[in-house]
Order: sequence, then C-alpha cells, then structure tokens
Amino acid sequence: MDIDPQTLPQREVSKLLSGTVVPRPIAWVSTISVDGQPNLAPFSYFNVVCPNPPTLLFCTGVRGIEPPQKDTYTNVVATGEFVVNFVSEHLAEAMNITAIEAPPDVNEFERASLTAVPSAKVKPPRVAESLAHFECRLLETIAIGEGAGGGNIVIGTVVHMHFDDRVFREGNYIDLEAFRPIGRLSGSAYCHVQDSFSLQRPRSELRP
Amino acid sequence: MDIDPQTLPQREVSKLLSGTVVPRPIAWVSTISVDGQPNLAPFSYFNVVCPNPPTLLFCTGVRGIEPPQKDTYTNVVATGEFVVNFVSEHLAEAMNITAIEAPPDVNEFERASLTAVPSAKVKPPRVAESLAHFECRLLETIAIGEGAGGGNIVIGTVVHMHFDDRVFREGNYIDLEAFRPIGRLSGSAYCHVQDSFSLQRPRSELRP
Repeated sequence: MDIDPQTLPQREVSKLLSGTVVPRPIAWVSTISVDGQPNLAPFSYFNVVCPNPPTLLFCTGVRGIEPPQKDTYTNVVATGEFVVNFVSEHLAEAMNITAIEAPPDVNEFERASLTAVPSAKVKPPRVAESLAHFECRLLETIAIGEGAGGGNIVIGTVVHMHFDDRVFREGNYIDLEAFRPIGRLSGSAYCHVQDSFSLQRPRSELRP
Repeated sequence: MDIDPQTLPQREVSKLLSGTVVPRPIAWVSTISVDGQPNLAPFSYFNVVCPNPPTLLFCTGVRGIEPPQKDTYTNVVATGEFVVNFVSEHLAEAMNITAIEAPPDVNEFERASLTAVPSAKVKPPRVAESLAHFECRLLETIAIGEGAGGGNIVIGTVVHMHFDDRVFREGNYIDLEAFRPIGRLSGSAYCHVQDSFSLQRPRSELRP
C-alpha cells in the first residue's frame, strides 16, 4: 500500500501517524496559567532530546476549534515552566480523565481526584501520585504547519528530578517492575511494557 | 529521591532520562551520504509532531569522539532526505546490528543482511524487510546544548508512506497484531506491546 499523505484528509493522516509510531511515552504535563489556575494534560508526542543539558520535548496540536491552542501550550508560553509527571499503570484512569478537552477554568487535578504538591524549582505543582517528576524550564517553542492540524514543539530543560523511593535504585537506575509505566498506542489503546527482552549492542568500532 | 541533574555526570543523567521516558518508539533511519554511501541506524528519541503537514522528529546525540556527529545527521543535513523504517519483532536483531558505532564507509544494510529497495520520492533506500516506511524531507534541524552530550533535533515532513499489505487495514488502520512493533526501554532493554488495554477518552466539553 503506497500513500501520498497529501491526498488524504488530515484526520486519516493522523490515524496513520499515531498507528505506526508506537509505542509512545506519555508526558503528563502540569502547568499554571498567569492567574495561577493549575492545568494537567497528557501528551504522547513526547521524548528525550539529550542529556547535556538534560532536555525534553513534547508537541501540542493546533485544533480546529476555539481556542486553537491547548491550555498547556498557552500556560507554558506565558509562564516558561512545566512539570512532566509520569504515568504508571495505577494512574492510567486518572490520566485519561485529564485528557478531556475542557475550558481553561477546569482544574484537572480536581476532576481526576489527584493531589497537587509543590515543586522544588518551578511554580506548577506536581502530581503527588506519580512515581517520577521532571521539573522543566521552557527553552524554545517551534511552530510547525499552519492552522488546524499543525503543531508546536515545546522544548524544555530539566532543572529538577523527583523519584519515589519505590522506583529509584542505587546507581541511578529506575526499577521498571516497580515503575510500571504505560505506553500510548493508536486510537484508545495503551500498552504495558513488562513483556521485555534484551539485546546487547555491538561493540563500538570508533572507540578504543 | 530529589536530584539536581546539574550535580550528576552526564552519563548518569542520560541513564535517568532514558530509564524514565519509556517506552520509546524506534525510527530506523536510512540515509545516503553525498557520495551515495547508504547508512542505517536506529533512534529512539523519536516521535510524531503533527499531521498537517505530516511531520516527524528524531534527535541525534553529539558524541565525545571523532566524528562527534553521527553519520545519519551528517547525511540528512547534506542531502535533505531520510526514510524512517519501522522495526517489528522479527527485525529486532537486525536493528541491533545496525546500532553499531562504525566508520562512515560501513554499509549497515550489508552488515545486517538487509535488502535495500528504492524509495518512491527520496534517494535513500528503504529496508525491504520493514512492514512500514515513511519517506521524509528535512524541514529543519535545531542544535541543543554544546559539545558532547548535546543533541540535534531533526524535523522532517513525511512525503510518502508505504505499508505492507499484511499490516494495512481498510479505513487507514494499522493492525497491531500483524505489525508487532517493539519499543525501547533503558539500557539494553526493549518491550513488546501486545499486552494492551483501552481507555475511552472523555467527551469534549469544547466541541458541540
């Protein structure tokens, strides 16, 4: 099957992209508005950029409704700060509740019966129930496309990391069996990651 | 456990980032050099940006060795084109062989006994054994950090999509059971994604 994506409606292109680029990690992003209103929403167009300095990015979609920008994007641009909370299996349903498209005055922490706790270096609160949190400062945003279906790449520097003692192991390892993160698939599907295997990377031919 | 990443060696920060941001999708990126030498390498700092236009990004690390830039990055910048091949379970070992750090004159297709087939709209070949391929044109690169441990964000527009008939379903769905993609975890670990579940997203409060 050969497809020129320019010949397909945007909704169909979106299905193909999110059905093929799987599994995706989930950034459960907390922010506050300039008025101090907390917001919490999940984003699966998310990943690491590099360790030096520790940098993450996530992408927010531009919608065909008012307001076209998601509250998360508006808040990050206005305040320059966000927290990435991580979603373990026991938080899947709460995360899904916060995926709602709701007006800016809705506090998703309350909607999902989650506990907001202060961060160490940034103003947005953390999700107390999460087992890991990365506090971030906005580095740069990049707009892609024009209008509905376009996106904004939000790039942030990690300024502080929190790990629950249940998942952190000596030597800076995360215990996957205790962390039990979930991944995003297409449509309404998510995956567990406990069914894993190991591949030893071949020895470098560039290093001594 | 509270960590200020500025106080940790870069290698430890890297372990924490890639141990927490999981599971990650894998872009198995094929490129050619200006001299026509094919290259193939996997990247798990990879994701969708948006559907309109269909846009992807992946990040390449800057190494503390010569050359600091990976061949993939050098080739994409020089030629403006790349193909994202997708890694199903049956290709895991071949993908891992191509993860080697090797001199630019090494052809990873040959190393891993893979078949290079022509693309429809770009010069880099595709991996015939992959069940899906996205042909891309470079939109923009963004450098993050300085020197070793920094990264380059490579943003590309998808200009052509190929799907094997075994994974493509009417209505532009990808059959996950047939596709059987793998996800990247930390260290040498990968995950299967067949252990999945479904969560119905709440009804929008912004749309009629």
